[in-house]
Amino acid sequence: MKKAILLLSGGLDSTTVLAIALDQGYSVSLLSFLYGQKHDFEIEAAKAVADYYNIKDHHILNINLGFLGSSALTDNIEVPKGRNLKDMSSGIPVTYVPARNTIFLSYALALAEVKGAFNIFIGVNALDYSGYPDCRPEYIDAFQTMGRLATKVAVEADQILYIHSPLIKMKKSEIIKTGLSLGVDYSITHTCYDPIAKGKPCGDCDACLLRLKGFEEIDARDPLNYPKNQK
Amino acid sequence: MKKAILLLSGGLDSTTVLAIALDQGYSVSLLSFLYGQKHDFEIEAAKAVADYYNIKDHHILNINLGFLGSSALTDNIEVPKGRNLKDMSSGIPVTYVPARNTIFLSYALALAEVKGAFNIFIGVNALDYSGYPDCRPEYIDAFQTMGRLATKVAVEADQILYIHSPLIKMKKSEIIKTGLSLGVDYSITHTCYDPIAKGKPCGDCDACLLRLKGFEEIDARDPLNYPKNQK
Repeated sequence: MKKAILLLSGGLDSTTVLAIALDQGYSVSLLSFLYGQKHDFEIEAAKAVADYYNIKDHHILNINLGFLGSSALTDNIEVPKGRNLKDMSSGIPVTYVPARNTIFLSYALALAEVKGAFNIFIGVNALDYSGYPDCRPEYIDAFQTMGRLATKVAVEADQILYIHSPLIKMKKSEIIKTGLSLGVDYSITHTCYDPIAKGKPCGDCDACLLRLKGFEEIDARDPLNYPKNQK
Repeated sequence: MKKAILLLSGGLDSTTVLAIALDQGYSVSLLSFLYGQKHDFEIEAAKAVADYYNIKDHHILNINLGFLGSSALTDNIEVPKGRNLKDMSSGIPVTYVPARNTIFLSYALALAEVKGAFNIFIGVNALDYSGYPDCRPEYIDAFQTMGRLATKVAVEADQILYIHSPLIKMKKSEIIKTGLSLGVDYSITHTCYDPIAKGKPCGDCDACLLRLKGFEEIDARDPLNYPKNQK
């Protein structure tokens, strides 16, 4: 069975990626991070997703990125609310965490090496939300090139490392459609950057708005409970 | 003043790199890691080195790589002793920590982004000890390419990121010669993988043997106290 390491935040995207990887026949080890995020409830969602798919091999690492002190996700900076799509897609938002995907992928690379896995799955997405530099296809390609040189397996084993980012060119609505067709239960996922309470999404941050729009576009209902009535 | 992030282990190599970076006029922020290494005394050495150069901006991050469970530096695996140079340079040694430099450089990249620094210094060395895949020039080049795409500064600022590895093609003896010419005090550095006690090098692991050989080749005396009499 092909082995893979999958970065699971417990959100809509990474959960859909997990459904895709399992559908493609990979044996998956999961990796999640407590990195000082305000929405650390997502780790509870990640555990629920792991349980749902009966995956026992789930590493949850505690790495504090708060020392960087520069993101609305980890610091005393307000998470933007009620923005329109045009604002979301212009420039890099304050919710950007410096080099986060590079740090996450580096740990995945280490775990891949230990497990003898040659596949890493990540749920980055360049279309709906183009402001994050480390979500672009050219970035993922460059990480893959680096990763192929970085590890023991790359040097000793007759295998090539692949970074899979199956959602990278999908719209949020396409991601949800794909997930639903693979039986994803989105009621156990968590997306909100700034929850009102544990597991209660605000419905108004960029992440919630994009998620809601995605469901709306395919005339599906988001199973999460938002404070405002959904359309 | 040009800003740089420098990965400081407290060892001979990274301390020499610090002397080089300061000599080249960089304003340096230091980054060190407690990653579960048996020789965590090196962090005390890193602090002493930071003090020596009067650098206050020193981040010491606690990131446990022990979960990977596969290196003699972090796990219940014996550190090899008394090996000859031929054995050291054939294959990847058990002291190799999976993707360690990639993880360290990723954090450096994050800090570089926050500080608006476009230079990262790392003391990797490909000649004396060629077994580590993430010490090769092609690896460093690939990380630099990836780093240039990974961050906000890469996208927004009119600057290019450089990963500096000034020791990469030097022999250990050349490194020491360079350091001595720049006034490095090697008595406060720590190199041993498996110290007998806090700050007491074993004199017999690969790291000690390479260090001792380096001093010997330039007829200099290593100021550390080893159990055996030095030549």
